[in-house]
Amino acid sequence: MKRINVYVAAVIFVGTVLFGGSSAVAEEGMWLYSDFPSEDVEKTYGFKPDAKWLKKAQMASVRLAGGCSGSFVSKDGLVLTNHHCASGCIQQLSTAENDLMANGFVAGKTGDERKCPEIEINQLVEIKDVTDRVSKATEGKTGADFGKAQKAEMTRIEKACTQGDKWRCDVVTLYHGGAYHLYRYKRFQDVRLAFAPEFAAAFFGGDPDNFMFPRYDLDMSLLRVYENGKPAKTPDFFKVSATGAADGELTFVSGHPGSTQRLLTTAQLAFLRDVGFPARLMRLSEARGWLTEFGKKNAEAKRTSQESLFGVENAYKAIMGEWKSLLDAAEFQKKVDAEFNMRVNAADPALEAAYAAVEQAQKDYREIFDLYMQFERGQAFSSDLFGYARALVRGTAELQKPDEERLREYTDASLPTLTQLIFSPAPYYPEVDKAWLTFGLTKMREILGADHPMVKKVLGSESPESLAAMLIEGSTLGDPAVRKALWEGGRAAVESSMDPMIMMAMIVDEDARAVRKQYEDRVESPVRANSEIIARAHFAAADGRTYPDATFTLRLSYGSVKGYTERGAEVRPETTFGGAFERHTGKDPFALPKSWIDGKSRINLNTQFNIATNNDIIGGNSGSPVFNKKLELVGLIFDGNIQSLGGAFWFDESVNRAVAVSSAAIVEALKNIYGADRLARELGK
Amino acid sequence: MKRINVYVAAVIFVGTVLFGGSSAVAEEGMWLYSDFPSEDVEKTYGFKPDAKWLKKAQMASVRLAGGCSGSFVSKDGLVLTNHHCASGCIQQLSTAENDLMANGFVAGKTGDERKCPEIEINQLVEIKDVTDRVSKATEGKTGADFGKAQKAEMTRIEKACTQGDKWRCDVVTLYHGGAYHLYRYKRFQDVRLAFAPEFAAAFFGGDPDNFMFPRYDLDMSLLRVYENGKPAKTPDFFKVSATGAADGELTFVSGHPGSTQRLLTTAQLAFLRDVGFPARLMRLSEARGWLTEFGKKNAEAKRTSQESLFGVENAYKAIMGEWKSLLDAAEFQKKVDAEFNMRVNAADPALEAAYAAVEQAQKDYREIFDLYMQFERGQAFSSDLFGYARALVRGTAELQKPDEERLREYTDASLPTLTQLIFSPAPYYPEVDKAWLTFGLTKMREILGADHPMVKKVLGSESPESLAAMLIEGSTLGDPAVRKALWEGGRAAVESSMDPMIMMAMIVDEDARAVRKQYEDRVESPVRANSEIIARAHFAAADGRTYPDATFTLRLSYGSVKGYTERGAEVRPETTFGGAFERHTGKDPFALPKSWIDGKSRINLNTQFNIATNNDIIGGNSGSPVFNKKLELVGLIFDGNIQSLGGAFWFDESVNRAVAVSSAAIVEALKNIYGADRLARELGK
Repeated sequence: MKRINVYVAAVIFVGTVLFGGSSAVAEEGMWLYSDFPSEDVEKTYGFKPDAKWLKKAQMASVRLAGGCSGSFVSKDGLVLTNHHCASGCIQQLSTAENDLMANGFVAGKTGDERKCPEIEINQLVEIKDVTDRVSKATEGKTGADFGKAQKAEMTRIEKACTQGDKWRCDVVTLYHGGAYHLYRYKRFQDVRLAFAPEFAAAFFGGDPDNFMFPRYDLDMSLLRVYENGKPAKTPDFFKVSATGAADGELTFVSGHPGSTQRLLTTAQLAFLRDVGFPARLMRLSEARGWLTEFGKKNAEAKRTSQESLFGVENAYKAIMGEWKSLLDAAEFQKKVDAEFNMRVNAADPALEAAYAAVEQAQKDYREIFDLYMQFERGQAFSSDLFGYARALVRGTAELQKPDEERLREYTDASLPTLTQLIFSPAPYYPEVDKAWLTFGLTKMREILGADHPMVKKVLGSESPESLAAMLIEGSTLGDPAVRKALWEGGRAAVESSMDPMIMMAMIVDEDARAVRKQYEDRVESPVRANSEIIARAHFAAADGRTYPDATFTLRLSYGSVKGYTERGAEVRPETTFGGAFERHTGKDPFALPKSWIDGKSRINLNTQFNIATNNDIIGGNSGSPVFNKKLELVGLIFDGNIQSLGGAFWFDESVNRAVAVSSAAIVEALKNIYGADRLARELGK
Repeated sequence: MKRINVYVAAVIFVGTVLFGGSSAVAEEGMWLYSDFPSEDVEKTYGFKPDAKWLKKAQMASVRLAGGCSGSFVSKDGLVLTNHHCASGCIQQLSTAENDLMANGFVAGKTGDERKCPEIEINQLVEIKDVTDRVSKATEGKTGADFGKAQKAEMTRIEKACTQGDKWRCDVVTLYHGGAYHLYRYKRFQDVRLAFAPEFAAAFFGGDPDNFMFPRYDLDMSLLRVYENGKPAKTPDFFKVSATGAADGELTFVSGHPGSTQRLLTTAQLAFLRDVGFPARLMRLSEARGWLTEFGKKNAEAKRTSQESLFGVENAYKAIMGEWKSLLDAAEFQKKVDAEFNMRVNAADPALEAAYAAVEQAQKDYREIFDLYMQFERGQAFSSDLFGYARALVRGTAELQKPDEERLREYTDASLPTLTQLIFSPAPYYPEVDKAWLTFGLTKMREILGADHPMVKKVLGSESPESLAAMLIEGSTLGDPAVRKALWEGGRAAVESSMDPMIMMAMIVDEDARAVRKQYEDRVESPVRANSEIIARAHFAAADGRTYPDATFTLRLSYGSVKGYTERGAEVRPETTFGGAFERHTGKDPFALPKSWIDGKSRINLNTQFNIATNNDIIGGNSGSPVFNKKLELVGLIFDGNIQSLGGAFWFDESVNRAVAVSSAAIVEALKNIYGADRLARELGK
């Protein structure tokens, strides 16, 4: 199970984008639609995608702005994605009386479909090369100046493209400075839930089976995009196959891989291995501990913390897998050797200087890492309310500035996303939030020490517990109307607010901005500028077949349904419903829901359930359609096996597998377990 | 705050003992009493300890078998050690009505002193060189044969020395095979609690201040050893100074450093860095999370889990510090270079083969590590009741065998320690134990995977929660009488027991023994045999000034009261009571107890409270006496600063500091805060 937020947070250098080298195996590659190797596909599989085919696949693919992929599966805006991609919405629509996570949800008619408070869906409609404009703006600049000029130009380009709430435009850095593309998305903010199975079916096997194969999960949900209160028209969609995919069948995956680090420098990888990943894992471990215990208090505590725990466990397992890959000394040495060879072959003083600068940036990052993570990346204040408070405090301050001088998450182009958060009617759970804030403040004190000036400034003579209680209990920011009033009241309203969380966000803002500036000037900007030089050297060394590292933008991968060998044993690439019943013990997380037990006699136990393919994917691809050459949807990506986690750094075709729900299972479950006949019919079944 | 159990568990190769090289700075060294560098002390400090002085210090020093140090401070068996060394006892003597951890304890008269269920105190009375006997037994042997022969000979030597319950004899491996010494201890199993301050005073500053300096902790307790129901006579003791120690004053520390790894091979250090430490830290992080939340349920949950949480947090911080030392790439490279140089200089094929064998053993260890930790080292069954069950199941089986063929913790020489555990009247807390067992089983499933045969064997169709509940609720092993009956009933009683925990211990015993044998044959034995060869090479390369790596045996270190520089600022080597009141915020863990607030007017706020010295110590030295050349006790070791944690791998005199309670504070607190006049008088005050 993958979620982009795991990767977005884990990736230290946002925008550091490189590309695969010439040693790529057939199925390796997260290809750009604008540069897809159709000839290679033909060579291996005898089928050559043409421009029309590619355009159709592109238009039928969607992105969930929060960090997932999806696809249109009907002409009326029906979107197929994972349960875990919609689980935020499902939990937000739940109440103590009707827990949709536990019970599932089937909208009997269109009018029953329920609006998700915070889901935004984007459809990529246009790709434009803006490399010349961006490069010109940064010409001859280095360090902080480089970063500032680049950001300003990107903001200008995005603003000109965006024009209102209907469109979202992102300048995407590809091949780090090898190319800048402007991606224009159609933006859907009215997204409604049409179907979700029970959590027990979606995540059967739970954390123990997560990132494993064989697998038995119905990790699906159906959403629908609306325009003007009506289902949107979506003429480009995937027809859903009722039979799934056969062993060996050619499969395409279209989606939004979050981030890969396949050609980071070894200094950057060492930073991740020795600093970035361990810090996150320690934090996630401890959070898992208290969240697990928290949920044991009572049913309501469990309900309100489940989504949080699920995210934590998923991130822990994913990052642990990546980290273990980096700890593989032999694999790491290969990276070291490859880098050494390229540098020796290039014998270029400018390249050497670039490597030295990136290495120096890692040293600088080590110095500021703790402070940056605590105060700018939100670890000290790991609370929903603080998130609102910061958005209000910063947003109202940033809006005073010209667009291109603002922090990038407060530009005009970003405002729809920001206001969707601020105005969100999602329920707020103060007890979980207080526990998170207590945890965040406790770790802040632990990591920086009780005598750190910032720790003293934040805590004063309070303990983490007492401060968290004061802030959460004294704040009214849990009420969307209060947030709306503050937002609309602007800077003056925020500055005169006596809400303790707003006041806390004000108190730490200057320091947080200062450490962010340190990060941007000493780490991000030099890495960006110098990675460009390193990227060019890789270009020169590469042999034509290249693809950029993942950036949560649309990519297309090809491969096939394929098993693998694990500890000497063959792993078959598909499972059936029957296997799920065999795995059922009745004890969570190996307990199928009542609907399955009751429906067992109605379903064909030989129906294909989950499949494994050798498509090259990574976190962010969750919800991606798996389709065949006829553009029929045959599967729904929801995970990769544990070996796929090393895919962040290299692609090992022998064991790296994408894991998907077979479309056969989707159809069978909708019809014969959930009685979701309306939706099954809409899929043409 | 240090506890030997942290280190014993973290140390992967028990008995791998090497020695410091010739680069030792003046204060470096955990010296053997039998090989103390008195001349060096004289050279630096103008005082030369003689044999009589050394013998007196040795006899006044004691060891707490659970993992701490201490000293006699009166002729009537009074023992000074840390609060955290006696906290197990303090919690065991607590009830819901009178929580001695929270309230402290003062025995008004001898008869009020209360027996600790599980504390054993050892006084080292004799050291004998048995190198010839042990070496002869293993001559020409390798691998598993080497280990078996060595263990059998050690068991024989220990048995001949022990003679009943009054003595404890250990063959100690020093300089790995450079020497084997037989240590004969007088064993005191009747140990009573005479005084303990409140936890809030003993551990003021809590986890945030742990391993920090400046510091303000009264981390002390007074125990008393009894013989035949009366206070034991202890003619060798330290007189307690009422003034403490002055800046620059020569200080000795006598105690039992648990383990150092200063000359492990880099392959061994890499194992710790990449496998051993991270695995422990992840586990401790998660345990800290749930224990913290567990304790929030109510006062009783807090009371019964406090000791557990405290141990977890302490271990986490200690191991984190050590791990970060190993992650220092520049320091690690020094180790790599030193090893490389020594090997090149030696140019010895036998030495090369030894290094290769140790490296191979690390590879083998990686393969079996998870299984070994889960089933033999108790991680899957992290429960007190399972601990009893295993002791009963294994003990009754092992006693069927000749002494020298038994697992080492079940030899005749070890029986007093074993039966003290089995018969312990310490209270048992089923709720905490169930939570620990659930955690252990959950991690077992996570780490080995739901489909691992051992996981299936243990869980069957149960979940970790349901199995833990069945085992804990169905077992009567929490009752000491039940355990005693089973022990006395012997193998037949155990085999016919229907206690579910006994049955579980039986079910997994064969597999656990199998993986232990794998560990011993493939890891422990080859490392022992080959480390001997490596040790000899170090001997040859060293320049006379050598000391063995720590082994939880008595050592003497010398140094002085001394400050240091941290981030450019001078850290003074002493604090006062006044400083504690300045740090008091009233919020836990910075809340002084009521007795201090009430007593503030009676105490001299300028009294020396905690001191820092550059003595070379490590975990296990907790409770060690700090004394001056007149053999006056001037302090009580309770911690090291954060920089001292790298002491596991190297001694950096510029910042590595031991942290102690000043004897001045001990006297002042006993008299003027706690009204413990009887005990103060016994100390001669």
